[in-house]
Amino acid sequence: MDLAIEDLHPSLGDRALLSMNFLNEVAQHYPDAISLAAGRPYEEFYDVEDLHSYLRTFTAHLAERGYDEAAIRRTLVQYGRTKGIIHELVAANLRLDEGIEVDPESIVVTVGCQEAMVLVLRALRAGPADVLLAVAPAYVGLTGAARLVDLPVRFVAGGAEGVDIDDLIAQVKQARAAGLRPRACYVMPDFANPSGLSLDLEMRQRLLEIAAQEDLLLLEDNPYGLFPAAGHERLPTLKALDTERRVVYLGSFAKTALPGARVGYVVADQRVTGAGLFADELSKIKSMLTVNTSAVAQAVVGGKLLENGCSLITANQREREVYASNLQLLTDGLAAHFPDGEVSWNVPAGGFFVVVTVPFPVDDALLRRSAEQYGVLWTPMSHFYDGSAPVNALRLSCSAVSRDEITTGLARLADLLRAELKTAAVRAELKAAAVRSELKAAAGAAEAPGQG
Amino acid sequence: MDLAIEDLHPSLGDRALLSMNFLNEVAQHYPDAISLAAGRPYEEFYDVEDLHSYLRTFTAHLAERGYDEAAIRRTLVQYGRTKGIIHELVAANLRLDEGIEVDPESIVVTVGCQEAMVLVLRALRAGPADVLLAVAPAYVGLTGAARLVDLPVRFVAGGAEGVDIDDLIAQVKQARAAGLRPRACYVMPDFANPSGLSLDLEMRQRLLEIAAQEDLLLLEDNPYGLFPAAGHERLPTLKALDTERRVVYLGSFAKTALPGARVGYVVADQRVTGAGLFADELSKIKSMLTVNTSAVAQAVVGGKLLENGCSLITANQREREVYASNLQLLTDGLAAHFPDGEVSWNVPAGGFFVVVTVPFPVDDALLRRSAEQYGVLWTPMSHFYDGSAPVNALRLSCSAVSRDEITTGLARLADLLRAELKTAAVRAELKAAAVRSELKAAAGAAEAPGQG
Repeated sequence: MDLAIEDLHPSLGDRALLSMNFLNEVAQHYPDAISLAAGRPYEEFYDVEDLHSYLRTFTAHLAERGYDEAAIRRTLVQYGRTKGIIHELVAANLRLDEGIEVDPESIVVTVGCQEAMVLVLRALRAGPADVLLAVAPAYVGLTGAARLVDLPVRFVAGGAEGVDIDDLIAQVKQARAAGLRPRACYVMPDFANPSGLSLDLEMRQRLLEIAAQEDLLLLEDNPYGLFPAAGHERLPTLKALDTERRVVYLGSFAKTALPGARVGYVVADQRVTGAGLFADELSKIKSMLTVNTSAVAQAVVGGKLLENGCSLITANQREREVYASNLQLLTDGLAAHFPDGEVSWNVPAGGFFVVVTVPFPVDDALLRRSAEQYGVLWTPMSHFYDGSAPVNALRLSCSAVSRDEITTGLARLADLLRAELKTAAVRAELKAAAVRSELKAAAGAAEAPGQG
Repeated sequence: MDLAIEDLHPSLGDRALLSMNFLNEVAQHYPDAISLAAGRPYEEFYDVEDLHSYLRTFTAHLAERGYDEAAIRRTLVQYGRTKGIIHELVAANLRLDEGIEVDPESIVVTVGCQEAMVLVLRALRAGPADVLLAVAPAYVGLTGAARLVDLPVRFVAGGAEGVDIDDLIAQVKQARAAGLRPRACYVMPDFANPSGLSLDLEMRQRLLEIAAQEDLLLLEDNPYGLFPAAGHERLPTLKALDTERRVVYLGSFAKTALPGARVGYVVADQRVTGAGLFADELSKIKSMLTVNTSAVAQAVVGGKLLENGCSLITANQREREVYASNLQLLTDGLAAHFPDGEVSWNVPAGGFFVVVTVPFPVDDALLRRSAEQYGVLWTPMSHFYDGSAPVNALRLSCSAVSRDEITTGLARLADLLRAELKTAAVRAELKAAAVRSELKAAAGAAEAPGQG
């Protein structure tokens, strides 16, 4: 039996889903290209043997808590609690590393942060009037999750400050005027993917005020917050500043513990009238989505937390140095290659990403050419915006590469961009010449009106 | 910020989701009651140490396949292939245990069978005219998954044969007459949850014919197929009989490998016009739902497959004996407790479940009373039907209990049911007396018409 693509869910033809696929496909097609595209964590410090150690540590922890052999076996091997088995360790981690105090019962452990997003968006999409706001440029996984639950996304300008507050207010008002109900605004306040931008403390407070004023939830996504650049301090998360339970906090262990575990979580301490915690409603959805998060995977992450006194700052000392030093190398390298201002970039206060702005549109065709002819991968920023307007920027990532790869990758990128700048200049010159010649012809025609 | 339940997705008020929650809640509230409700696998043969062994076996397998240390680490610890890393082992298992030949590329490894259902239903729900057919009584997880993707379920009568073919055809026609588009019919042909019924070979072939005739997909769910009762042979799955790629096969490792791994899969070898395999479309959805299935969890299941030459029949020799012997004990026990025909039950050809039919409605209140006063849990069959019509039946499970627990649990259940039969008899007698007295009063009134 054959199926027709138009008889399948519309998300399958959607930019967000195709985008992820396209980027993966290019990466697979050019395995030897240096990837300044991948946002994966640095993997050199991982050791397969650690998986065993983490598992044993978590097993020992259960024994210390009074679990007998049968209870330990049941916990690790059987079906388990829908909201997870490491919620208390997650709460301890949030207290320690983020100064966030939450009841472990308000935490749902999920299959990575992606499932956390789907749970929250599925719950918030009660009907066709509901819409989500998201600060642009936005992580493609957020847009994709929204598509899966038929929740339209309306983009809020990010600007240079990370969020354009006036545009946020305007978007809320426009949506309401159109009979729509903006349920929440998605934002990544720390070293955002893909922009690299962070919100300053004043902006964080302002965002919480606006959310209260407009009665919005804020969906705070924080995968990179532990990784400030050299000389930068970490700022409090929105959730740490939140006194009104206005923030749903999306947590990832992919960059701070183990991507291969696929464990994330959501803190949803909001109360639901006529029910209990928002977390318990998310848990009901989870019971029909994935039943529970793999106990084995949770045990591995739990063990890593335990071995580091529940601090992921402690666990990531070496990684923090690598990321800070790679980011420095990347921005220094850009400065060395492009001293003259034709190409510009931001200098993030941390995280994995830098956005490079150029005086020509950066599209998928250019990425393919870069991969094929120059051996370097990066991500067109157009993938992180709605619509098909050309975007003159690309994202570089420095998390999963060595210093040599950054240096070589940047040199290759510089060759590509310089060639494109030259082509763009020639094109501009040809266009100018064509315009001049048209003007001249028009002037000639104007001199011989009788022939018109 | 508080949320109102009516502002959340309607599935959260749905029977399917509430049902799962209610059953879990009762089980948690009465931890000392004997559970003839839980469909969990038997856990006594599991050993936490096996997790380490499986992981090492899978690691060694990667090394044998030529992966160097960095590639092994990347495979187990990093983000990975959306469709999974054990697809070839799954294909080998299907060939060996089920006689199903499929290209490993048509397999998507999922976060348990539950995610597989969500992927398929999400893909098939293209618009509001799409509906799903499901053989009743149906697994509550299927109904719940359909609710999450806003896909209405229309039930097909199961009857004594497992599927009422005439009703299936009638349901298809009725749906089409109502302007709806039935996309697929969900069925569990082997030792179904909750009915315990199996389809005979003729019925399987008939079902494939009807699916072809009506241009339907069949969604075959097969979590229990490896566990025939004593003296029963296994029958070929629909997928093994499928020559037209009309069957999407939903696979679970929860009962045959490790529930705590949360690994399942879907075989979707259908071709999609204008795209590739249906599996690749499901993979796109998965990339936005859970990104990929935990590599650690897959490695554990992969290791268990490898240690058993990819045969789960081999891996489950002891479990198969336990289940067959428990099922025998359960049906023998029912026969001993209820020799006189007031209470009846089916004698399944395998699996975990027996349905007991009684001459009174079995509701949630009776389950609570059973838990509190009799110390035994079971599942009201009403949870597996649509609508709120009373159902005079309950489901017993014998998979996660010892022989002693079955014996004691059954004795407790017999006490409850006998008490209910007596109450029902008294109620019937009172009702009959009331009717007699009404008739008499009416007759008296008829004798004195002047007072009317």
